[in-house]
Amino acid sequence: MTHAIKRHEPTAILSNAVEGGGLVFTAGVVAKDLNQDVQGQTRQIVDEIDRLLKSCGSDRSKIVSATIWVSDIRHRAAMNEVWTAWLDPKHLPARACIEAKLADPKASVEIMVTALK
Amino acid sequence: MTHAIKRHEPTAILSNAVEGGGLVFTAGVVAKDLNQDVQGQTRQIVDEIDRLLKSCGSDRSKIVSATIWVSDIRHRAAMNEVWTAWLDPKHLPARACIEAKLADPKASVEIMVTALK
Amino acid sequence: MTHAIKRHEPTAILSNAVEGGGLVFTAGVVAKDLNQDVQGQTRQIVDEIDRLLKSCGSDRSKIVSATIWVSDIRHRAAMNEVWTAWLDPKHLPARACIEAKLADPKASVEIMVTALK
Repeated sequence: MTHAIKRHEPTAILSNAVEGGGLVFTAGVVAKDLNQDVQGQTRQIVDEIDRLLKSCGSDRSKIVSATIWVSDIRHRAAMNEVWTAWLDPKHLPARACIEAKLADPKASVEIMVTALK
Repeated sequence: MTHAIKRHEPTAILSNAVEGGGLVFTAGVVAKDLNQDVQGQTRQIVDEIDRLLKSCGSDRSKIVSATIWVSDIRHRAAMNEVWTAWLDPKHLPARACIEAKLADPKASVEIMVTALK
Repeated sequence: MTHAIKRHEPTAILSNAVEGGGLVFTAGVVAKDLNQDVQGQTRQIVDEIDRLLKSCGSDRSKIVSATIWVSDIRHRAAMNEVWTAWLDPKHLPARACIEAKLADPKASVEIMVTALK
């Protein structure tokens, strides 16, 4: 059934998105411009998730679950403002938001989602 | 296929549980009464997961995967006692348990599960 | 539909792998010999994931998503060398890698994957 898996935009270590089994899995997305603040980084992340989901034939209304890591748990409120502006209140995913040290010390937020196709 | 997704108990930022693609995804659940100790909080969490899964037409015997965050890794043993009392040894999910700082400083445990319908 | 779930190698607290809904979920895998360095531990982990996926009728080419926890984010580069040697560049999963304190203080890496059957 390997042919049923479609991998999008592979880097050296991961695929930015993977389709399979009717689901779409994104990588943990961080902002490209890490000089921006929490909200600027979050806006970049959700734009990138929109782009990845679209390339997989899905969209933000079909996200079923999300994991959000913030480098400092106090960033959660600022991140949430961008998050709630982004998502339709009728299509909110299950979600966990926890603090973790991220790969790049300048990254404040990382978001990984699972969506339906 | 958006109609195939059913979202339960939306808050301002997330749905407490989401059904889709034959799967159920819960939010990361924390205790409501955060003045209780690790075991008291864990008991509240597993009761809430029972309730959420039931409202999705699933139950604890169908959990396939769980992620458990504890605010101090030393809470793991106390949490595990409640965990193993809750689950039938014939129906144990795949699981990871790691330490993370959680949104509320009084929360000791947060559990997020994926189940089959 | 409980009969559609197949649980592999239960321990006291978890199943090492669970099949259900066309997917395979592994537990968060850590090395058995924790006296080895980051790369030695990662090699043990990926060997164990190969073994678990095989017992579920899957394999590393069908991994769709992975979460990697490292006890120190500086271990990421060493872990990645083993990771990229292990995976075919044509079959890279979506992935997040974050720092977290793990259950055993000697564990440097823990990896949890979702694969298609």
